[in-house]
Amino acid sequence: MTEAILRDTPSLLLLGPGPSPVASPVRLAMAQPVVGHLDPEFIALMDRVQNGLRDLFGTENRFTLPISGTGSAGMEAAIVNLVEPGDRVVIGIHGVFGGRMRELAERQGGKVVAVEQEFGKPLDPDAMIEAIQGGRTKLVGFVHAETSTGVLQPLDEIAEAAQAEGALVLLDCVTSLGGAPVHLDALGIDAAYSGTQKCLSVPPGLSPLSLSDAAFDKIRGRKQKPTSWYLDVELLSGYWGQGQRAYHHTAPISMVYALAAGLDAALDEGLDARYARHRDVAARLYRGLAALGLECLVEGSFRTPMLTSICVPVGVDEVAVRQRLRQVHMIEIGGGLGPLAGKIWRVGLMGEGARPEVVSRLLAALGESLAHQGHGVDIAGGLAAAGEG
Amino acid sequence: MTEAILRDTPSLLLLGPGPSPVASPVRLAMAQPVVGHLDPEFIALMDRVQNGLRDLFGTENRFTLPISGTGSAGMEAAIVNLVEPGDRVVIGIHGVFGGRMRELAERQGGKVVAVEQEFGKPLDPDAMIEAIQGGRTKLVGFVHAETSTGVLQPLDEIAEAAQAEGALVLLDCVTSLGGAPVHLDALGIDAAYSGTQKCLSVPPGLSPLSLSDAAFDKIRGRKQKPTSWYLDVELLSGYWGQGQRAYHHTAPISMVYALAAGLDAALDEGLDARYARHRDVAARLYRGLAALGLECLVEGSFRTPMLTSICVPVGVDEVAVRQRLRQVHMIEIGGGLGPLAGKIWRVGLMGEGARPEVVSRLLAALGESLAHQGHGVDIAGGLAAAGEG
Repeated sequence: MTEAILRDTPSLLLLGPGPSPVASPVRLAMAQPVVGHLDPEFIALMDRVQNGLRDLFGTENRFTLPISGTGSAGMEAAIVNLVEPGDRVVIGIHGVFGGRMRELAERQGGKVVAVEQEFGKPLDPDAMIEAIQGGRTKLVGFVHAETSTGVLQPLDEIAEAAQAEGALVLLDCVTSLGGAPVHLDALGIDAAYSGTQKCLSVPPGLSPLSLSDAAFDKIRGRKQKPTSWYLDVELLSGYWGQGQRAYHHTAPISMVYALAAGLDAALDEGLDARYARHRDVAARLYRGLAALGLECLVEGSFRTPMLTSICVPVGVDEVAVRQRLRQVHMIEIGGGLGPLAGKIWRVGLMGEGARPEVVSRLLAALGESLAHQGHGVDIAGGLAAAGEG
Repeated sequence: MTEAILRDTPSLLLLGPGPSPVASPVRLAMAQPVVGHLDPEFIALMDRVQNGLRDLFGTENRFTLPISGTGSAGMEAAIVNLVEPGDRVVIGIHGVFGGRMRELAERQGGKVVAVEQEFGKPLDPDAMIEAIQGGRTKLVGFVHAETSTGVLQPLDEIAEAAQAEGALVLLDCVTSLGGAPVHLDALGIDAAYSGTQKCLSVPPGLSPLSLSDAAFDKIRGRKQKPTSWYLDVELLSGYWGQGQRAYHHTAPISMVYALAAGLDAALDEGLDARYARHRDVAARLYRGLAALGLECLVEGSFRTPMLTSICVPVGVDEVAVRQRLRQVHMIEIGGGLGPLAGKIWRVGLMGEGARPEVVSRLLAALGESLAHQGHGVDIAGGLAAAGEG
């Protein structure tokens, strides 16, 4: 039956909210022979991966490494270590992943103050600041690029207010890392996690996590051990840290190979060029969508370039459009989550997927799928508008 | 720099306690294009993986799936869901991994009754039964094949005693699954987890977990949610279960491809043939070691075929031997853990590594490495003894 996996599939073009397309060098890296998790060769690769992640996170944090799980494991690792029972935690919720952060903090016994915002709009900095100043806040958590809505959250004001109150800042960078600038040290962000399957264009399976010294001080001063052993960062730092490598758990070797190859690709391209590519391609998409008569959910200045939420036009069957894209055009896009289910499509132009020719292919296929439902659009006009720079 | 990952390495022969050698079909499966985690094609693959795991675990448990983390994540998933604060938990500890089970159960607030045994010997069933009967025991946890010592634990008596007391049974099958028979349903074991990187010969990164209906009843009756969201089995069953697939976290797609290919290989070979191969190859190793004058740590009838602990002879530098095996012979074996550090070598003949020619290569290399330290042994005699059937 293995042939069924290995067959030469006409590749599905992944333009949903992740996973994103994975390039051959990364896929081939995964196919390399496995070495031991304490082998000198692997330890050298670990160092290289840690340095690459520091570049992407814009940090010199010693504790910067891939957690052995997908993006949500990184969120859990941050929260399970940083939140103690009774801690006042302010969480900004303007999408599904802010809501997840609250759920996780509550499971650790944190007293969560939720600052909610309509899905599709950025968090209100004043409301966040008021909540932060409303008590002895230990941690402020929010999402940089909300994968459920496509909002890119401005960071400065909230981070500054948190620092002024002596609170640690936790940032969800799952969708932003590698596609938009993240400067942890410059912004004074203490903890951030990401996933490999978005703008890094590596298969899902690892979650980069970075913690500042201040975050680590809080962890060292905990009254009791974190509830998780697998994600206990003090134990993890014994394996990933300098010097003697203490066995903790067996690292997912092949996934680390893939991440190393993905980081190589990002750093070889240059981070500024990579961010500019994501912005340029998003701008093409916006122009094309406008020419097709389609509206974006998020106001222009708050859109995150790697993920665009498109409002489903009245009278259009959103599921049927996605099915036609998948079956006829071999393109995956996402639907809405939570309160946005049925109301939006989510289009990811992430990492290897953020290419001009991909935008054209998507616009044509989306136009055809709408026309197939009797919702005629000007495909030629959409393609022309996308191409105007 | 990606070339450094992709170069045609002379492959290291992995004969440590895991990861084990990974065959080409599995490595190529990982290199296949990624599909979405909610794609119909992937969902079909999930069903196939779940069915394959049920065959290996000897169970019809509906909840049988790979946890998105390495073996220790499976241990944590079992314990974080099954243990509530104040639960009386009996843990058998005859190696490092039983000790880890205790640590994890304590982090969930379990009242652990530890039944300890010298490392290298099996648990004493009478001591376990006495502990189980010593109070209102909710859970009994122990290790099938202790990776730190090489002991294969007899299961029947302990499992029966636990059932008689109405306690659930949790079994660590990290090293045994795919290499020795595991019959969860026949033995009445309620929860078991494994790792992909041992006798399945798949890279590390997933942890198969199976839970009985009785285990699930206990979980549904919890007074509070488990401390982990990422490993919450009720949420996971919404994604892996039948019917509507509710998004929980993005599954590690490429690792699931690899596991599917690894399961294919195991089931194509036939489970009985696979277990016999592991036993036959272990017998060759025992004969060869005896002819070289080397002793095994574990008494014959309690040895687990896939992992053999060899006592380091007096006067031999154990680290130097492992380094020579690694550098000159391109073979990885393991050292001892905890109280056995410096005292034993651990040789894994797991999955793809469990081959007669591998035993010969190891015996010759080990003999040469000992001779290099002035500890002369009869290599020809060792090889001849291994080959006698």
